[in-house]
This record gives sequence, C-alpha cells and structure tokens, in this order.
Amino acid sequence: MLQTRLIKHCRQCGTAVAYRMPDDDNRERAVCPSCTTVHYENPLNVVGTLPVWGEQVLLCRRAIEPRHGLWTLPAGFMELGETVADGALRETVEEAGAKVELQGLFTLLNVVRVGQVHFFYRARMLDNTLDPGPETLEARLFHEHDIPWDEIAFRTVRATLQHFFDCRRQGNDYPLHVGDIG
Amino acid sequence: MLQTRLIKHCRQCGTAVAYRMPDDDNRERAVCPSCTTVHYENPLNVVGTLPVWGEQVLLCRRAIEPRHGLWTLPAGFMELGETVADGALRETVEEAGAKVELQGLFTLLNVVRVGQVHFFYRARMLDNTLDPGPETLEARLFHEHDIPWDEIAFRTVRATLQHFFDCRRQGNDYPLHVGDIG
Repeated sequence: MLQTRLIKHCRQCGTAVAYRMPDDDNRERAVCPSCTTVHYENPLNVVGTLPVWGEQVLLCRRAIEPRHGLWTLPAGFMELGETVADGALRETVEEAGAKVELQGLFTLLNVVRVGQVHFFYRARMLDNTLDPGPETLEARLFHEHDIPWDEIAFRTVRATLQHFFDCRRQGNDYPLHVGDIG
Repeated sequence: MLQTRLIKHCRQCGTAVAYRMPDDDNRERAVCPSCTTVHYENPLNVVGTLPVWGEQVLLCRRAIEPRHGLWTLPAGFMELGETVADGALRETVEEAGAKVELQGLFTLLNVVRVGQVHFFYRARMLDNTLDPGPETLEARLFHEHDIPWDEIAFRTVRATLQHFFDCRRQGNDYPLHVGDIG
C-alpha cells in the first residue's frame, strides 16, 4: 500500500503540519504553518544482489517481518553515503556473510504500490562460506530445480530469479531488465 | 554536501528527537524518545531524459536555484505513485513541454555527496515544438558543436551528454552507463 500523508508534525519545529499545495508546486505536501518548511515524501531504493556459485544461487530465509520465514535475495534499503553498488554489497555481507564480487546491474524494478525501486546486481561468490546475520534464519545455495518458488518473499526477488534462469538458458548474456511490479 | 541529522522533531508526535543507534540497527537514526518512532534518511532519485531531435539534443536553461541560468536536461525528483520512467516523462513535459517517446534507460549516476541517484532515459522527440514551464527560462535544441559545455548546471547532465555523443560517434548502440560522480 502506498503510504502517503504519514507526516503529522514538522521535522524542524514540531508544529502540526497541514497538507496543501505550495505556491510553486503541483501536488499537495505537508507544509508547516509555523516555520513554512515543506516536507517531501519520495520513493525509496531497495538494493541487493543475486549471488551465484557455479550452477547455484544464494537465498536467505527471513528472520524478520514482513515475510518472516520466506526466502529472499540479500537486499535492503539504500543508505545515505553509499552508491547503489555499495548498498547491494553491504546487504550481501550483513544478511548472508557472503564474499562476492559485483558483476553488472541486472534488474531495476519499480514497485509503485509501495513507493520503492528495487535494484539487483549479479554477483560472483568468491567462496561458498556463509555467515548469516540476525535478519536471516538460514542462508543456502540452490540449484534451479530446488528453488522454493512457493516460498519466495517478494515479487521482485521472483522476477530477478526468473530473469536470471531465462538468461542463463539462452546463453551467457545478462542484460539489464527494467520492469514494473504491478 | 551530504546533509544528515536534518530531523529535529518527530513526524508522528512533534517531540524533539535524539540521534542514537536503535537496538536492532548498526547506525544512528533520529529516534523519538516519546513515541519511539525511528526516522530514516535515505537517498533520493532524480529522474529525467535526454531528448533527441534528429542530430540535436534538447537543453533547458534553469529559472530556479540552484544553478539559475545554467543549462540542464529536463529532470527532477521522482515522486510517489510513479515509476522512474513515469517521472522522467513528467519532468520532460513540465520543464520543456516536449512530446517524447522514451527509449532505453541510458545513465544511472550515483551522487553520494548529496545523497542522490540520477537516472536519464534517452527520448525521441515526436515533434520540435516546445513549451517551457515556470522552472525553465528557455528550452532549445543544440547540435553537439553548440553545446554550452561551460554553462552546464550539473555534472550528471554533463556526463550523460558526453556518454551520448561518445556512443553516437561509435555507432548506433546506447548501452546503460552506470557511474559515480565524485
């Protein structure tokens, strides 16, 4: 669900905001009636990797909500102070303890309904040791025929896995896939 | 300049926040001591196009700060409720009044210093009529040899233009360029 109008108070002075259209704008924003600060709400980036070890790919079983117990690729919110690639690498270490080398940006998926853009890099695992962090119940390598398709946590993860196996079947080229998750 | 610690009051209840590391986190966040809301600060996406008409490209001269009077490609902050492509198209209409058809995603440029990711689509102009909006002093078509390189507003715009002319000289392929602006 796209959550808008989440701002109730001004981040600068604490006064209750009002939603109205600023003079030089064309949509409603949370505006502070006291200090006039305009508060914008914008999409967030979720960044991660598809780690590959030989014929296998790495999935992590979530230890946190949402989708506790389901399988995902290592990914999380991009932070200030990092690039998309930095964030993807950081999440891979934090969630799986995997040592990887990033390859190309592989999927860019708009998830308009929740105000997010998801980015996945292909990544080559440098060895097969794993050390899952607190957000992960279990990290494991899967062959394509073992992927738990009915227990995948997010549609962007499913789309990224499907695109990867499709590309692999068709040869050795992995072009960026830009898509929208309805 | 990367502006962090901009949050002074809780958006939920207006109480003054304190910056501290939440229990399940690994970096400091603005946390409300009253209602316990954690406030995250994340990078923003700037989305735009490189509109092409025959041999010429479209630039807009900025009527707003920052970089008032300098030339840019049509671009602006991605909004909730839209995809990267939707936002790029919207900005092209708002800033230049250009009618375009999006082609491939062309550049993805991390600007870590200001906490932004910039995205430019190549776009084919459907005619050469323009109708600049209030944020634009003037919108104009330029041949490569007329580009005002010393008056380009942003380094991501310069990088996108350079990549485009490089690609065009080398043939007719326009692969995505992922890069970092230092």
